[in-house]
Amino acid sequence: MNITFLGTSSGVPSLTRNVSSLALKLSQSAEVWLFDCGEGTQHQIMKSNIKSSQIKKIFITHMHGDHIYGLPGLLATLGLSGNSEGIEIYGPSELRSFINSALKSSFCKLSFPLHFVEVENFALKNKILFENNKIKVNCACLKHKIPAYGYRVSEKDKPGVFDIKKAESLKIAPGPIYSELQQGKKVVLPDGRTFDGKEFCGPPREGESFVYCTDTVFSESAVSLSKNADLLVHESTFSQTDERMAYEKLHSTTIMAAKTALLSNTKKLIITHLSPRYTNKNSITPGDLLKEAQKVFPNTHLAKDFLTAEIK
Amino acid sequence: MNITFLGTSSGVPSLTRNVSSLALKLSQSAEVWLFDCGEGTQHQIMKSNIKSSQIKKIFITHMHGDHIYGLPGLLATLGLSGNSEGIEIYGPSELRSFINSALKSSFCKLSFPLHFVEVENFALKNKILFENNKIKVNCACLKHKIPAYGYRVSEKDKPGVFDIKKAESLKIAPGPIYSELQQGKKVVLPDGRTFDGKEFCGPPREGESFVYCTDTVFSESAVSLSKNADLLVHESTFSQTDERMAYEKLHSTTIMAAKTALLSNTKKLIITHLSPRYTNKNSITPGDLLKEAQKVFPNTHLAKDFLTAEIK
Repeated sequence: MNITFLGTSSGVPSLTRNVSSLALKLSQSAEVWLFDCGEGTQHQIMKSNIKSSQIKKIFITHMHGDHIYGLPGLLATLGLSGNSEGIEIYGPSELRSFINSALKSSFCKLSFPLHFVEVENFALKNKILFENNKIKVNCACLKHKIPAYGYRVSEKDKPGVFDIKKAESLKIAPGPIYSELQQGKKVVLPDGRTFDGKEFCGPPREGESFVYCTDTVFSESAVSLSKNADLLVHESTFSQTDERMAYEKLHSTTIMAAKTALLSNTKKLIITHLSPRYTNKNSITPGDLLKEAQKVFPNTHLAKDFLTAEIK
Repeated sequence: MNITFLGTSSGVPSLTRNVSSLALKLSQSAEVWLFDCGEGTQHQIMKSNIKSSQIKKIFITHMHGDHIYGLPGLLATLGLSGNSEGIEIYGPSELRSFINSALKSSFCKLSFPLHFVEVENFALKNKILFENNKIKVNCACLKHKIPAYGYRVSEKDKPGVFDIKKAESLKIAPGPIYSELQQGKKVVLPDGRTFDGKEFCGPPREGESFVYCTDTVFSESAVSLSKNADLLVHESTFSQTDERMAYEKLHSTTIMAAKTALLSNTKKLIITHLSPRYTNKNSITPGDLLKEAQKVFPNTHLAKDFLTAEIK
């Protein structure tokens, strides 16, 4: 899996950072899942390597405008392009009325179905939000001025790497039998020979896990959601020097984000949702925010619009 | 007065043209009036020479998303920046509920008042929409799939140019007396001498007039709204070759826009709201659209994002 940042600014867009959005490309299908959709996200998608027609799910963390005002436009454009068969939208319960009201006011009839999933109960009861044979999604309550939710996407373990050379050396002709062997099954060949798939596969490969937490002040539930994740993307609106403001506005500082990564044993942290007060012309720059976080969690990186990062 | 185009594409944004918006800078005050506000307008304002804090009025032509989805974000950003004392929003009656619902869903409380003016009756009864001692605004019903309104901004005539040299030659000391003379008033100086302001001013200067018509198929009311205007900005979604589609979708072709300018004796026409099917890589390019229109109305120009044009 990999992610592409489409918006990394907090609250309002700046000339170099749009408001929040991030696209997750799944590894085993051509699906794209969007996390948050601030105004101008459809414009950023157009400029990125993401295909909007591949968007199947949209996860919204909370109802502040810089995370949702791009939804009506993106959905309307997808409707006009006829490029979508349907989209599942996960988020707070108010999301349905926001989208329906905007589409209704603008006489916009989508050419595809929208399926809303209200995440409140899943987060409160720590229930799995979505699951199929390859992937699972959980969510957790964060701590912000209004209800906000973090999301975790965890791939199921994948079968071990299949030893084709071994199969060829044993004169097993390529075909559907290879995929049965790769799933570790026992097979009987036409010539009567039997083989155990387990002997052709390396150890199962651990699925990748990605966590997205914004907007929130430091929160234990973000720590538990991120347990042993491969990649945590966490908001870091404020520098440590503005900690008081972070507590006032229930946002995170660099240190809070880094602490969350440290305590949850995440492998890698990317800080995003930076306040536009920290530009390269100001006393504290985005680079300074990065250094602050790296003091606590060395494997921290700085989000930038259009940055693509592998989950592992 | 001058205008700056912030969005010149129809329906969806393209890499070079955002969805509809245009900023009018008034000549006798630091005010900016916005016409339509598609998604990404606040981003375009940031990249232009327009100051969002100067926006006092927003005129919306109709409720299609590519003309309104940028309103919640722009208003929220103005609210966060504390840069506005209040905005008047003119448009269809549904506009109030669209904006209020979006702001409410996103827990956004603006730091300034919004004053809504529903334009339906003004258009139907051809009543003046707004007027002060310097400027007047009218609106008219256009012909589109949903109710749409064109707007005309007409400056009142301005006093003639004041002949300072004459005043100086008559030893009239500069001061408030000059502005009284410029208003054509009779004045008595401290030394008892009397002067008639009319003898110090050139002929009154005709106010400038600007008309904005989109979305519409050819419409007589657009012709009458544009009577003798200095500048008409008219949608031209389709090439003449796609006339059938224009009638189907109740949009204009280049020829319809040019005919409106010709019949109304407008001095200058700028065509905008171009369908993204006409890019420079397609068989019909924006340049071709311009040529089509110029055949009927030679003084036609092509809108481009960030183009600034004087009204006269």
